[in-house]
Amino acid sequence: MNELKLGLLGLGTVGGGVLTLLERNGEAIASRAGTTIRVVAAAVRDAGKARPGADTVRLSTRIETVIDDPDVDVVVELMGGTDAARDAVERAIRAGKPVVTANKALIALHGRELFALAKEHGTTVSYEAAVAGGIPLIKALREGLTANRIHSIAGIINGTCNYILTEMSQTGAAFDAVLAEAQRLGYAEADPTFDVGGIDAAHKLTILASIAFGIPLSFDQVKTDGIESVTAEDLAYARELGYRIKPLAIARRQEKGVELRVHPTLVPERDLLANVNGVLNAVVVRADAASPTGYFGPGAGAEATASAVLADVVDLARRGTDAQMPALGQSADLVDSPRPLPIEEAVSAHYLRLRVADTPGVLNAISGALAEHGISIEAIVQKELPPPVSTTTVIILTQPVPERVAAAACAQIEALPAVSDSVHRIRVEHFDE
Amino acid sequence: MNELKLGLLGLGTVGGGVLTLLERNGEAIASRAGTTIRVVAAAVRDAGKARPGADTVRLSTRIETVIDDPDVDVVVELMGGTDAARDAVERAIRAGKPVVTANKALIALHGRELFALAKEHGTTVSYEAAVAGGIPLIKALREGLTANRIHSIAGIINGTCNYILTEMSQTGAAFDAVLAEAQRLGYAEADPTFDVGGIDAAHKLTILASIAFGIPLSFDQVKTDGIESVTAEDLAYARELGYRIKPLAIARRQEKGVELRVHPTLVPERDLLANVNGVLNAVVVRADAASPTGYFGPGAGAEATASAVLADVVDLARRGTDAQMPALGQSADLVDSPRPLPIEEAVSAHYLRLRVADTPGVLNAISGALAEHGISIEAIVQKELPPPVSTTTVIILTQPVPERVAAAACAQIEALPAVSDSVHRIRVEHFDE
Repeated sequence: MNELKLGLLGLGTVGGGVLTLLERNGEAIASRAGTTIRVVAAAVRDAGKARPGADTVRLSTRIETVIDDPDVDVVVELMGGTDAARDAVERAIRAGKPVVTANKALIALHGRELFALAKEHGTTVSYEAAVAGGIPLIKALREGLTANRIHSIAGIINGTCNYILTEMSQTGAAFDAVLAEAQRLGYAEADPTFDVGGIDAAHKLTILASIAFGIPLSFDQVKTDGIESVTAEDLAYARELGYRIKPLAIARRQEKGVELRVHPTLVPERDLLANVNGVLNAVVVRADAASPTGYFGPGAGAEATASAVLADVVDLARRGTDAQMPALGQSADLVDSPRPLPIEEAVSAHYLRLRVADTPGVLNAISGALAEHGISIEAIVQKELPPPVSTTTVIILTQPVPERVAAAACAQIEALPAVSDSVHRIRVEHFDE
Repeated sequence: MNELKLGLLGLGTVGGGVLTLLERNGEAIASRAGTTIRVVAAAVRDAGKARPGADTVRLSTRIETVIDDPDVDVVVELMGGTDAARDAVERAIRAGKPVVTANKALIALHGRELFALAKEHGTTVSYEAAVAGGIPLIKALREGLTANRIHSIAGIINGTCNYILTEMSQTGAAFDAVLAEAQRLGYAEADPTFDVGGIDAAHKLTILASIAFGIPLSFDQVKTDGIESVTAEDLAYARELGYRIKPLAIARRQEKGVELRVHPTLVPERDLLANVNGVLNAVVVRADAASPTGYFGPGAGAEATASAVLADVVDLARRGTDAQMPALGQSADLVDSPRPLPIEEAVSAHYLRLRVADTPGVLNAISGALAEHGISIEAIVQKELPPPVSTTTVIILTQPVPERVAAAACAQIEALPAVSDSVHRIRVEHFDE
């Protein structure tokens, strides 16, 4: 039996998962791949560190040494970041070596150039592990649903955010407290900005939307709101109204183009996505033929991510790099490829939370402002606060309207004398309608 | 751009779906496949029938004419059944033509010979549409999860059964009434035996288990119980106890081998599978690395099934037939391939429903019989019936025990003088434990 030899760039959590999986399931994987798969070299920061399970792996602190190693057939990029990782992947491609990566930022930001370079050099860049960890979602979208016209993708694709909102919702704790707990448990990074700010999910959505709609990788076009502004109060009010607040990434085709957005979202409590809790990921795809289809599973973790990395490696073993599998699912430019829409043109219902003076006529003034912008009200609830507070909280659910209309109406409401503070606004989606 | 030309054997529901999808999405599919895909010929029963959308398709009542047509590159078998379909697929393979089929019975019963013949003739047989309709489940299991050691597959893979049990549970109606309604709505065949008897699900489970566990296609080893024996009473009692009854197909690795079984099953109401209703299919895979992963979507229907057929066709266009993709995911025999277990060795908890005389000591006699077989009781509920009935119904939930132990205990209970009728038994599964 042949052997396919891997060189890992990085031997941290995911790299360790790859070694563990090959150690435990190597024989079965070989029988499936038709080839023994072995890690022969790895680039690490500290070559002196003890690494159980890596005895037969040649360690080097120089990335180039691993890439250029004539023994290395496939380069597995697990460094993260976009600068050094990009250089490394380009070097591997120029050496004609196929690359497997788990790096969503790299693909979202530089995928276009990397895929073109790989094509030029007759090799490939695979990235199943970059989106939704252990869920074979890239394959489902690019291959399984290839005969469909996709209408929308909506998913929870950041486990950190889902964990935080789930905990806040279930315990009533505040964002900061739950974030600290998540960091202690290893569910959030020391610097959580990329996760809680929605950047990580936006990288992933960029990739999914490109495959689904045949549009270029358009990270810059994704509207990204973090979950930091969601309060325990919002989660409780949402629940009262029959909703949950979930961290969603949404790519939706509408008449004018494709909406691309990542933000906390109210979804009806019966919706599948409302019931995906903790660090689990889940994505629902609506299309014209096979619809809806849904995919859920672990979006992160050493072995779940390694499972996706090795799925790409086995694909290479089975098919080689000469198969005509276009990296983003498009062999040729799509004739009627839709354009990514600016957020102002996105259409959503909205949850509005306002602090208002407890005076007669205030609800009427607010509903008047909404009516002036043609916004219908689905529900309006006034929450009395205990004395001596002289303001009350008003919660409004609107019907769907374009983003710019909602923003203009909120600005008008904020200008009302009875309204203190700014209007707190969260988008609401009903996918089944 | 090249063209890949299809010959359809059968132009009924799914064949019509293939034509519709190619008509509607053909341009996008071509840009993804790198090849225009076109149906050039079809074998039909009645060549004179008007067929909208099939104007450019050469119709023939002779299957051989389509297979042998030098213009046909790929044969798409949509005839159903196993005899004529087998002959047709063999003929196509001998002509060196790749075959795409939606025929689960054909693969479950004759897959082994067909895959071997295809290999011999340097071609392939693809069958994504054979299991779970529009859900790209074969691909997920064979490719996406290929680095995993699978522990279990549990799923709702027969939409007819799920529709019937969902309706019975929600309306309280009896099996016969709901079946008649399902037939009227087109959710059940005129002869529903294959669906309600579990045979259809057993065909699909046979295929999934072979991929997941590296075992031969073992349809004969699948224990198959239909849903006909589930009463509205059972559904109501299950609900009272915090369960739902779902039509599950289960393949589970245990110490001694792999359990293969299709039967109505009590699952806790919080389980994902308990909440998949109507004709939807859903499958949850538990494994050692990426786990759990779940897949849901439409398990049948013209366009959902056509979506899967065309996914296979696009795979052929992208990769050709020379790629080393083993049909059931195994390139070589698995060294430690587990053996399919007889049902007697399967381990489940059980729901027992008994009709007993309303006399002192009867519960004690029953619990004594269970204790004698080492069966622990999870719950026991006595349901008084209104006078003049002098018997009561007893519901028991047991802890998990091997099937043969449960069967022996039930036989002993049935021999008790106070017990009229046979013990009505339904298996109970807790997948998260």
